[in-house]
Amino acid sequence: MELEVVLERVRERVVPDETERAELAAVVDDLRSRAERAISDLPVEADVLLVGSTARGTWISGERDVDLFVRFPPDLSREKLERYGREVGYSVLPEGHEEFAEHPYVKGEYRGFDVDCVPCFAVESAGDIRTAVDRTPFHNAYLVDRIEPLSDDVRLAKAFLDAIGAYGSNLRTRGFSGFLTELLVDEYGGFTNLLEAAADWITPVELDPRSHGRTSFDDPLVVIDPTDPERNVAAVCSETNVARLQHYSRAFLAEPTESMFEPWHPDPLSASDVRQRIETRETTPVALRFPTPDVVDDQLYPQLDKSLSSIERTLDRAGFDPIRSTRFADETAVLLVECGIAERPAIERHEGPPVGVRDHAENFLDAYESTDVTGPFIESDRYVVEKERNHRTPAAHLEDVLSDISLGPAVRTAVESNVDMLVDSELASLTDEFGSHLARYFNPRP
Amino acid sequence: MELEVVLERVRERVVPDETERAELAAVVDDLRSRAERAISDLPVEADVLLVGSTARGTWISGERDVDLFVRFPPDLSREKLERYGREVGYSVLPEGHEEFAEHPYVKGEYRGFDVDCVPCFAVESAGDIRTAVDRTPFHNAYLVDRIEPLSDDVRLAKAFLDAIGAYGSNLRTRGFSGFLTELLVDEYGGFTNLLEAAADWITPVELDPRSHGRTSFDDPLVVIDPTDPERNVAAVCSETNVARLQHYSRAFLAEPTESMFEPWHPDPLSASDVRQRIETRETTPVALRFPTPDVVDDQLYPQLDKSLSSIERTLDRAGFDPIRSTRFADETAVLLVECGIAERPAIERHEGPPVGVRDHAENFLDAYESTDVTGPFIESDRYVVEKERNHRTPAAHLEDVLSDISLGPAVRTAVESNVDMLVDSELASLTDEFGSHLARYFNPRP
Repeated sequence: MELEVVLERVRERVVPDETERAELAAVVDDLRSRAERAISDLPVEADVLLVGSTARGTWISGERDVDLFVRFPPDLSREKLERYGREVGYSVLPEGHEEFAEHPYVKGEYRGFDVDCVPCFAVESAGDIRTAVDRTPFHNAYLVDRIEPLSDDVRLAKAFLDAIGAYGSNLRTRGFSGFLTELLVDEYGGFTNLLEAAADWITPVELDPRSHGRTSFDDPLVVIDPTDPERNVAAVCSETNVARLQHYSRAFLAEPTESMFEPWHPDPLSASDVRQRIETRETTPVALRFPTPDVVDDQLYPQLDKSLSSIERTLDRAGFDPIRSTRFADETAVLLVECGIAERPAIERHEGPPVGVRDHAENFLDAYESTDVTGPFIESDRYVVEKERNHRTPAAHLEDVLSDISLGPAVRTAVESNVDMLVDSELASLTDEFGSHLARYFNPRP
Repeated sequence: MELEVVLERVRERVVPDETERAELAAVVDDLRSRAERAISDLPVEADVLLVGSTARGTWISGERDVDLFVRFPPDLSREKLERYGREVGYSVLPEGHEEFAEHPYVKGEYRGFDVDCVPCFAVESAGDIRTAVDRTPFHNAYLVDRIEPLSDDVRLAKAFLDAIGAYGSNLRTRGFSGFLTELLVDEYGGFTNLLEAAADWITPVELDPRSHGRTSFDDPLVVIDPTDPERNVAAVCSETNVARLQHYSRAFLAEPTESMFEPWHPDPLSASDVRQRIETRETTPVALRFPTPDVVDDQLYPQLDKSLSSIERTLDRAGFDPIRSTRFADETAVLLVECGIAERPAIERHEGPPVGVRDHAENFLDAYESTDVTGPFIESDRYVVEKERNHRTPAAHLEDVLSDISLGPAVRTAVESNVDMLVDSELASLTDEFGSHLARYFNPRP
């Protein structure tokens, strides 16, 4: 199908109609009035600012998120900001609850919309920010007019990135944030232009919309914040997600289809599917399963990732040749490493010092003289012994070293409370909770 | 026991008595006369020179080797040298046969002695040599007087090196030559002094008896030839043999015993011994056995070593983790690699190009598009597929690649004529021919 025909069909789905726009406008007016009334009861001045995709007309049809910022004078104390912010928040959203980013804000539902009511400081310029959220109004101001003619292209880009699993700057996904997506669409002048550019990217790629960057970054994609020359808006975006955008840009341009705007939901694997995959691969998967730590996702996933890479490293150093690994979390969390080696021999080589280093050499000989090892013998210039290996399988090794390896603190606590180790076909017991995750693992796509 | 008491007992064994010396002197006189008579029939001048340990009085009691050099004018053609050398050789040793070093010489038995009759050029100085053997008379001249007071210490050193398996500069042993041993005893002023020095060596060790060296060498032990500043007399001596001398020097000085002058002859292993060792180690040995190529040892062993390290490298690269390896030769030759990994999984990872390198990335995708692999998926910035592994065991892998790996030419011919592959307990079938070799392999000592 022709590119333009496909995009037109996708637009029909992602661009909101007049009714939806009107409904949003009414809700925003209402929220704004409620916030202003609440402010008038406070002993300080403040104003209300709509930010995010609803402010810029770049939300995808059906999304019902409203971000309302309440700006307080920059000389207010942090404590007062939090207190007043909370008061305004609960006035606007009486059924709301508090959440924490850098400081607390109120989140709640209002007339079917998910509303965040966030207090910030009304600083003079982006260089003066006191908290991270103070930057958001400047982002908004930079984009609001320039993105207006490209708003539907932004919607296409967001839908595309979402479908390929690369949308969202949370630390589980490490993808493209909404702000980053808008900057890229603006920079390249449209959705199709962005895909054409991404298809040809040779990383690292550096964009600097205001040509004011003065720091270098070690990231695959660098987009200098138009409001802060020392910040990379794409800092959180992983190499994999950058490569994924490149891959799917090429694929879509080569053969445009509507289906590439639809997220992939593979059929969950059954227990017998999993057993069959492991039998075919003849690998040795080892998984730890424990209750998911009760922390927010932006803490959970970095800790799972760190723990997983510790485990993978330790299995690699012990010679079990990890082939691939992954982590899932729902009620329980799973760290899975698929090893290439099921069993190592009863002995292992242990290289001693060079014979020429007399002190060390003599200590080594003394240490092994009356022990039950093969050797010491000499190879090249060193003593070598072959001694009994402590553990022959990945599971036995992992079990032994688990208490010594570096896990995230919340993961450590959860593992110490309750952990199961699953080996080989025991992975089949994960399918009730993680059948879809396992489908993605065993049938991965770019 | 005290060091001096032990050395005195060893001397009783290694120093020849008067009868033996007289018998040798008589034989040498006789050989010399026979050679001189043969020379007088030739149309050129030549003289006869006794070289080696019998010339310098450093042979070990019971050794019956005589090296007789016939020196021809340096302007003689190579062809005539060979022809006249052959004539003299067969006159001296009518039952002899020709062997080849750099050029032919005659070897034979005479009155119970093994005699080499070697033609060389009587060059003016060691700098003018035309063939490698021309250097020998200069070596002899350098040592003959200075080693005389240390002749018994040389005998102790040779016996010691022989007992620890480090004596001989042939390419099977890669140890200390007789000439090198004499230089070392001379340099350190005696056998015990040599051991004390070696015990403290920090390699690389460089000795230069005539302080005329002007080249640097990459060997663990460097002894500059007193007759040639650009030659390392210890060039052939392996790191292992240098380390071995260090090890046993320390051991002997710490606890002197006569037994350390006796070569180690371990009891041969039986077939069931071998099976039991392999069962205990739970390793996966793989051996190739083929008819020993019909070449001299100095060609055979380097070719076996080269072939063995090719095989070891290929098994290592394929992930079978070689733990140790060795080679034996008698009627048949064996290349043995003991692997740590018995079996690898059905799949293997194959990393493709970075997604950013568009041409390569697209070729990789095309190549794997409709094949039966897992993936392509993206990890970091690259495509990855997991595909079926060709071979899962070391034996299957080796069998497949054997025709492609680099073997010595004589080994290649022998392997192509007839090769058996032995795996695991099939090694037990080697014990008839190689029981002692296997004992050294499974119970190695320094």
